[in-house]
Parts: sequence; structure tokens; C-alpha cells
Amino acid sequence: MTTTPEAATVLSGGLDDSFHVFDTTLRDGAQREGINLTVADKLTIARHLDDFGVGFIEGGWPGANPRDTEFFARARAEIDFKNAQLVAFGATRRAGGSAAEDPQVRALLESGAPVITLVAKSHDRHVELALRTTLDENLEMVRDTVSHLVERGRRVFVDCEHFFDGYRANPEYAKAVVRTAHEAGADVVILCDTNGGMLPAQVTATVATVLADTGARLGIHAQDDTGCAVANTLAAVDAGATHVQCTANGYGERVGNANLFPVVAALEIKYGRKVLPDGALAEMTRISHAIAEVVNLTPSTHQPYVGVSAFAHKAGLHASAIKVDPDLYQHIDPERVGNTMRMLVSDMAGRASIELKGKELGVDLGGDRALISRVVERVKERELQGYTYEAADASFELLLRAEAEGRARKYFRIESWRAIVEDRPDGTHANEATVKLWAKGERIVATAEGNGPVNALDRALRVALERFYPQLAKFELVDYKVRILEGTHGTESTTRVLVSTSDGVRDWSTVGVAPNVIAASWQALEDAFTYGLLRAGVEPAE
Amino acid sequence: MTTTPEAATVLSGGLDDSFHVFDTTLRDGAQREGINLTVADKLTIARHLDDFGVGFIEGGWPGANPRDTEFFARARAEIDFKNAQLVAFGATRRAGGSAAEDPQVRALLESGAPVITLVAKSHDRHVELALRTTLDENLEMVRDTVSHLVERGRRVFVDCEHFFDGYRANPEYAKAVVRTAHEAGADVVILCDTNGGMLPAQVTATVATVLADTGARLGIHAQDDTGCAVANTLAAVDAGATHVQCTANGYGERVGNANLFPVVAALEIKYGRKVLPDGALAEMTRISHAIAEVVNLTPSTHQPYVGVSAFAHKAGLHASAIKVDPDLYQHIDPERVGNTMRMLVSDMAGRASIELKGKELGVDLGGDRALISRVVERVKERELQGYTYEAADASFELLLRAEAEGRARKYFRIESWRAIVEDRPDGTHANEATVKLWAKGERIVATAEGNGPVNALDRALRVALERFYPQLAKFELVDYKVRILEGTHGTESTTRVLVSTSDGVRDWSTVGVAPNVIAASWQALEDAFTYGLLRAGVEPAE
Repeated sequence: MTTTPEAATVLSGGLDDSFHVFDTTLRDGAQREGINLTVADKLTIARHLDDFGVGFIEGGWPGANPRDTEFFARARAEIDFKNAQLVAFGATRRAGGSAAEDPQVRALLESGAPVITLVAKSHDRHVELALRTTLDENLEMVRDTVSHLVERGRRVFVDCEHFFDGYRANPEYAKAVVRTAHEAGADVVILCDTNGGMLPAQVTATVATVLADTGARLGIHAQDDTGCAVANTLAAVDAGATHVQCTANGYGERVGNANLFPVVAALEIKYGRKVLPDGALAEMTRISHAIAEVVNLTPSTHQPYVGVSAFAHKAGLHASAIKVDPDLYQHIDPERVGNTMRMLVSDMAGRASIELKGKELGVDLGGDRALISRVVERVKERELQGYTYEAADASFELLLRAEAEGRARKYFRIESWRAIVEDRPDGTHANEATVKLWAKGERIVATAEGNGPVNALDRALRVALERFYPQLAKFELVDYKVRILEGTHGTESTTRVLVSTSDGVRDWSTVGVAPNVIAASWQALEDAFTYGLLRAGVEPAE
Repeated sequence: MTTTPEAATVLSGGLDDSFHVFDTTLRDGAQREGINLTVADKLTIARHLDDFGVGFIEGGWPGANPRDTEFFARARAEIDFKNAQLVAFGATRRAGGSAAEDPQVRALLESGAPVITLVAKSHDRHVELALRTTLDENLEMVRDTVSHLVERGRRVFVDCEHFFDGYRANPEYAKAVVRTAHEAGADVVILCDTNGGMLPAQVTATVATVLADTGARLGIHAQDDTGCAVANTLAAVDAGATHVQCTANGYGERVGNANLFPVVAALEIKYGRKVLPDGALAEMTRISHAIAEVVNLTPSTHQPYVGVSAFAHKAGLHASAIKVDPDLYQHIDPERVGNTMRMLVSDMAGRASIELKGKELGVDLGGDRALISRVVERVKERELQGYTYEAADASFELLLRAEAEGRARKYFRIESWRAIVEDRPDGTHANEATVKLWAKGERIVATAEGNGPVNALDRALRVALERFYPQLAKFELVDYKVRILEGTHGTESTTRVLVSTSDGVRDWSTVGVAPNVIAASWQALEDAFTYGLLRAGVEPAE
């Protein structure tokens, strides 16, 4: 391990600074086609990454767009980071100017981030074609910007963009950029395979040479265009890099970046190098899926370590041998990364996991084998229809209690509901919903308007029930996600809706599935209200 | 390159035998969770693989199941292979028996396949636990089965299962299996990372040692459990392996196998080693997608080389430099693998990327700076509202044409629409939509039912318009995605809908944004119909 003396400070998470896990999901990951993050999304992801224990979270480019500027302001105010330091990304100053007077550089300082990553050109042709300046001026831009920021108390990392291609074209110039950044006070110089065309053997050789020739502390930033981003990252570590830049689930431009999860798992498990806080690795599967939900992409079932198929075994031939010694058929124990072994011919939700889950939720199944089997059957049946309980604990708990208690908890009984959406000639919309239901022996008909049909239904339900259950006033829908299953049938497909509700203290998630987005939303809403009342300790009374 | 003399025959495709591209999509790839291939599917995939130019196609395990037996019979009768040889997969004979009398071995001969891959245990613990025999008997099983098949004129490859783990546990025994297979007449001995836990540096070291110690011709079979299957395959080649086992799109058990496409692309483009017939590489994208269609999995948009996002560029910053020299921003020319560069329109988009995008869409902006500025402004304004054009090319083209032509294309003018969703006391739902519009000077009122409100609107729109535009009958909604923006406001948030529509030949994507999921869907539908009619060459006529 190569450690420069100035990098020997201890991070808040208790990991020393000699190896950096640097996450750029919020900056480079957001470049993935189809990802479009709100500030709220970015804050949520930052919390997950901090929980996971990465050392650095690159949050965006403050000053480049209002969203990133807002993110830094809110992240500082709202997040109490346990492990990570927040990093602002920006560029070296403009050609011909000075760092002190560059508004983009000023925005980096104003972001308040303690660490700044500066992107610098290190490929001679890019300096000439993209920056349209001289090779010497580019070096001066690096030197001036790095030292300006370092003088103002910031820790500076320098991303050498297109480094590997640049090194092949003009190795002396590429190394001069590294040396300049290092001498100007950059703590780490990151060699970036921006176009992603490298293979591991090339990465190892290049990193080793640059390390020997410059003496700088080096990092690696790999893109997955050859399908080797994880391997390239590890190849750089093999050659002495001590800083790895990755993104959650490998999100990123074109085919993506080096995937944080297999990189970290390889370092911890295969290399035996501690790079995360205690216990963090076992949260990896959960965090990978949670981040996928936030960016609204289906978690990849076949992602190494964390995919639901990652430890799925087709039984048959090997079943008995797996029983004797599962380690013979798995490269690691899936529990180390928070995943589980699955036998594909057997139940998706096995009896043992249902029992464990019941315990976790405080529902005592008392080892009742018949009951557990019924729950397993019910989950299988519902998952076949498109339900998912992994992201809808509250709906699962309602299902579990319904089986354990012999009947479902009911605070109200729906007779019918209706939603109308009308587009008027003047371009405005009317959304109106009517709910007819019974609660505590009374029949109520309530109508409400909303800014959409689901919102109108939500309001009508509140209007109908709040007299009986004043607790409802505190419930707020905090997230609403729609996914279409069976993508080949367009608008005739099955729709799955996940709703998160909060009572100001805790959040719970519910699921609804129907061919109809409104009906699916209604199911999730009904579960959300029921669960909230259950948690509030209200006695059921239709 | 290591070549054994007996392997110097020339394959029909004109490639010499010194390097093998061996495909096991139909055998190991079919183990992927969710893949279930019919014989017809397997024949179609075999044709695609032969077109692509792999040297060997492992078709299955004849005798193990009737489907595989039938596949071999029909493949021999129905496919006139241009490049590939058909390979039957099977196991070494049973412990304590003889190969000559083993029914499973007989089935391999009866398949008529000229090449046979035998799986053999090479990990001592697996011999004991799974085969329940002695280490010596396992060697005898390898020797007997290989020589029996070789004597009957078959070419034999031996897959050493769990080789790498076995080599770590008991290197001498693992090598003894390789040596036994080699001496018995196996042409290639394949080292299999069955559990997929290896990293490239380990693979290189192990392959190099085994090659030096046994003198056998070696192959590699890698699984992707560490996310390094492609790199592990290339690492083995670096160490002297001359036979690579892969699957199309990386399909396979758990997270999958080494992906054929990036392996072959690396060998041809990065290593400069000819492993495919002339012109085959340029078919790679098409063949990858075609095979995904056959197995009924959505082609991965982010697959290296062949994904639709593989050469998609987002950053506005770089667009001006991309115009000057696209090679500076791509690791290869996408046309080499049959893919294309795409410019994504996003809020980072500058003038240069709008101009490039116009060119790509065939809309000549003629360098009109004022026009381009108007488009940039319009895109920024819409993206602020939540629109995204990177995933909605068709909506972007309509916007671009509206600006370029001074007015929007209109085939109909909406007066109003209404959608009603009703939940009835019996639990069923009624979905009804009414559309009032003008087309070709006539006012039409149409009502339709659907399985959801958006489907009902889609149908009502078709009922209203099909008399004027019979082309609509061919349009089919193939995908529908809903994203709630600003997740902190629950059901009061802004909704973005992306719709993909197909006319059976090509697909196009459109976007709608509104506080209301139905209104957002309506916008996307309206754009989808308009764009489809535009592409069909229909003249606008409100």
C-alpha cells in the first residue's frame, strides 16, 4: 500500500485514509441515460452511500447548474454524515485567466465542500481541440487552480481525464500533468479511462509506471466500455493505486462506470483489505436495491453479489451436495453481502425466511408449520401476479397478520370508488374522485378534487375517514412509484405501484398491482392507511 | 499463441484452428433464471451464432433430456453450418463402470456431433462429495471416456469443473486431471471457474503454471460472479489459453457467463487477433439483439459494444469537440461492431449537440444560429418542467421540426377528453374514455373502454381517428414508463410518462409531463400518434 504522509488522517468512520472508496454516483453516475435525479433523490442516495460507508461522496458540480448548487447547500444543512466527506466536482480554471478570478472555481469554494475534485485534461489532443489552448497553459491551469484551492484549506483530488489514451499518445505530457497536480498540492491524482477502452493488463502496466515516475498518490476511474471496469479498477490497485472511483450499481455514461459493489466486495473479501466500516458489507444488497429504487431503475437481477439471481442455484444434480456443503458451489457465503442463497425449484420465499421475517416484524408465527406454509404459498401466488414485498414491508406485514390472525385488519370497508379526469377545452384539467365506504357501522360518501386522480382518491378517502380516525391527518404520502410489468403489451400491461407514507416519525411502504394504474394505486393507498392505523395502535372497526 | 500440432486443421469458415471461439449459450447460457428455450429457439440461436462465425456451438446434453436429443437431430438435418461445428456436452462415465457400456456416453456418440465436451471433476472434495468416488477412479473415468470417444473418431474437449477452486485446494490433483485428459487424447482441456469467484491476476497465474506443467492445450470457461468474467477470459488468453468459452449476452447460471461479444470484440479490436470470419464483427450488435429477442429478454441497453447506450453521449461540454473528432470521445468506431453514435439531448445540451442531433434525425438546421438558440432555450425550458428528451427522440424531433418549420405538425386538434375509472362493489373495474376532437374539418366524439384509463384513451383516440388515418392500425404501444418527479410530495408530484410505440418496423419514444398521470400519458400518446403519422409520410391536416 502506498501512502503519502499528508493522507494519513483518520476519517470519521474509523477507517484510515490510506485507501479511499470514492463514490461518484451523484455526479458521473447521473450521466447514465434515463437517470434524472431531483435534489431530494440526491440527498436520499447520499444518505444510503454514507450508511454504506464510502469515504467520499462526489455530489455534483456546484455552479454548473442550480440543482447541484442546491444539493450542496441542503446536504450540508440536512445530512449528518457518519462516514463520508462531501466532494464538489469542478474544472481547472479557464485558459488565460486566473483561478482567483474564475467564477467556476469560486462556486467550488462557495459550495462549502471540504474536498474538491478538479478535472484536468491530460491528453495532448484534447488540450488542443477541446480546450483550444497550449500544452503549457494547461499545466499552468492545473497548477494555479490546485494551489488556489489548497491555499484556501481545501483537500484537492485531480481527475486526469482521458489519461490512458493520452498516455498512449504522449506519455511524457500525460505524466507532466500528474506531476504538476502532485507538486501543486493535490492529495490524489486519479488516472481516468474516460473512454473506457482499456483492458486490465494495460491498466496495471500504466499505473505502475506512472507511480514509479511521478511519486504521486494515484487513483483510478474506470468506465465499463470493454466490460472490464471492475477488473481495471482492481488492476490499478494491484499496481499501487489507493483510491478507487466507482458508482452504485455501475451507473454512468454510455455503458457505465466501475460498479462500487463488486469492487468493494472484491477488496474486502478477495483481497482481505478493510475498506468499509464494520458490518457495512452485509448491507450491500439492501443498499444496492434501495438506490435502484430511488433512481427508478429495476435492480439488475444478475448483478454480481447483490442481484437476486447472484446466489440462485438450479437444483437437481447438485442439490444433495449443496446441502452437505454450500461453500463448494458458491464463491462466497451470500450473507457476507446481505444476499441469500436461493434454490430455484423451491419456494422463492422459503419457510425459514418467512419465519425470520415474522420475527423481525414482531409477528410470532410460533413455529406453526401449516401457517408458515400458507404464508409461503400466498407470497408465491402474489409474486406471480407481480407483487413485490421486498420494497413493501408494510403490505407484507398486513399479509402475514391476516394469515396469522385468520382475517385481515379492516378499519373501513370500501363499497366502491370512482375517479374522473377531464381535459377541458381551455387546457386545464379537473380531477375528481368519489369514495363510498363503511366505517364503524356508518356509510359515507365523499368526493374530493386533486391535482391528479390518485391525489383526488387520497383526499376523498381522508375526507371520508378523518372523523373516525383523526390519526390520518398526520399521514403524508412521501413517495409514489409506478412500474409497468410485462413491457411488451404497452398500456395493457400490469401496473405495480409502490407508495411510501410517513407519519412524521417513521415511513412505511405498500404495494398494489392491477392492470390499471389507478386501481393499483388505490390498493397501495388502502394498505398504507390500514398499516398506519395499525401502527398507531388503533383498534380495527369496520 | 500456443498451438498444438493436432489442432492445425482449417475450419470451414477459413479461420485456422489455433484459436477457438466456443459458444455455450444453448447449454450453459440456458441455465439463466428465466430462460426456457424450445427446440425451435435453439435452432434459431444456432443459426445466429453460425452467422456470427463462432467456431463451436455447444448445443446441449443429448440423452439428458428429450429436447436436447431432438435439437441435435434437427440441427444436423436442418442447418447447413457455414462456420461452426456442433458440440455435444456430456459427463465422464459413471464410477465403477466402463465408457463403452455407459448409456450417457452412448447418447453422446448417437447425437452425431463431431465434437464432444466432457465435464470432469478436478476438485478433490467434489470428487468425494458429489461423485462419491475415489480420486484415482475419477482419473480413470476421464481416461476411459476420452479415449473411448477419440477412438470412435470424435474430437474431445474436457471441461475441468471447479478447476480454479480445486487448484487452490489441491494443485497436484487438479493438474493430474488436466494431464490425464490430455494424454488420453483430449484436444483442449478447459479450466472452468465454475463458482465464478476468481479475479484476473489469479487466472493469469494459474493458467500459466498449468500450461507449463502439463503441456496441454488450455481453454477458459469463466462465470461472472465477481463481475470479471470478460477480464478473466482475456487474462487466460494472456497466459496462453487458446480456447474461450462464452455465451451470447453473457447469459448463464447465477449472474451469468463470460459474454461472447465483449470477449470477441476485445480479441479482434484490442488484441488485433482475427477470431471471426471477415465482416462478422459488424454484425455483432444485430446478432446480440436478435438472440435477446429469441430468449425473450429485453436487450441490455448498457451492454458493452452492443447496447443502445454504448455510444451515447450526453455532456454538452464535449459536443463541439466530438464534432471535430469523434474518436477522441469513443474507444472504438461504433460501426466496427454494427452500433452507432447517438447524441443525447439533455439540460447540459449546448448548440453543438442540438446541431449534431438535428443531423442525426435528418432535420437540417442549416447552421441557423437563431433557430438553434431557440431550440436550446425551448429544451432547457421544457427540461426544467420535467421533460426529458434523451429517452424521447420522437418528442424531440417534433419540437425541433416545430421550431424549424414555424409551427407544430397537427393531424388533429383536441377539443377535450375525459377518463373515468370506477371500482364497483363486486371488485371489478370499469375504465371509459371519451375524446372530442377535430380532424380534416370534421368534429368527432368517440368513447371507448380499456383495461385502464390510459388504454381507454388510447382506444378512444384510435376510434376517433382511424377513418382519417388508417395507418394508426399498425401502431402498437410497446412500453410505458411512469416516473414521479420531486418524490417528496407524494401523489401531488409531477408525473413524467415515457411511451414507446412501434409500427412493426421501427420504435419511437415520446414524453409527457403533467401533475396528473393521465394527462401526462395523454401528451405522450398524442406525440406518439403524431410522430407515427409523420414518419408514415402522411400530410398534416387538422
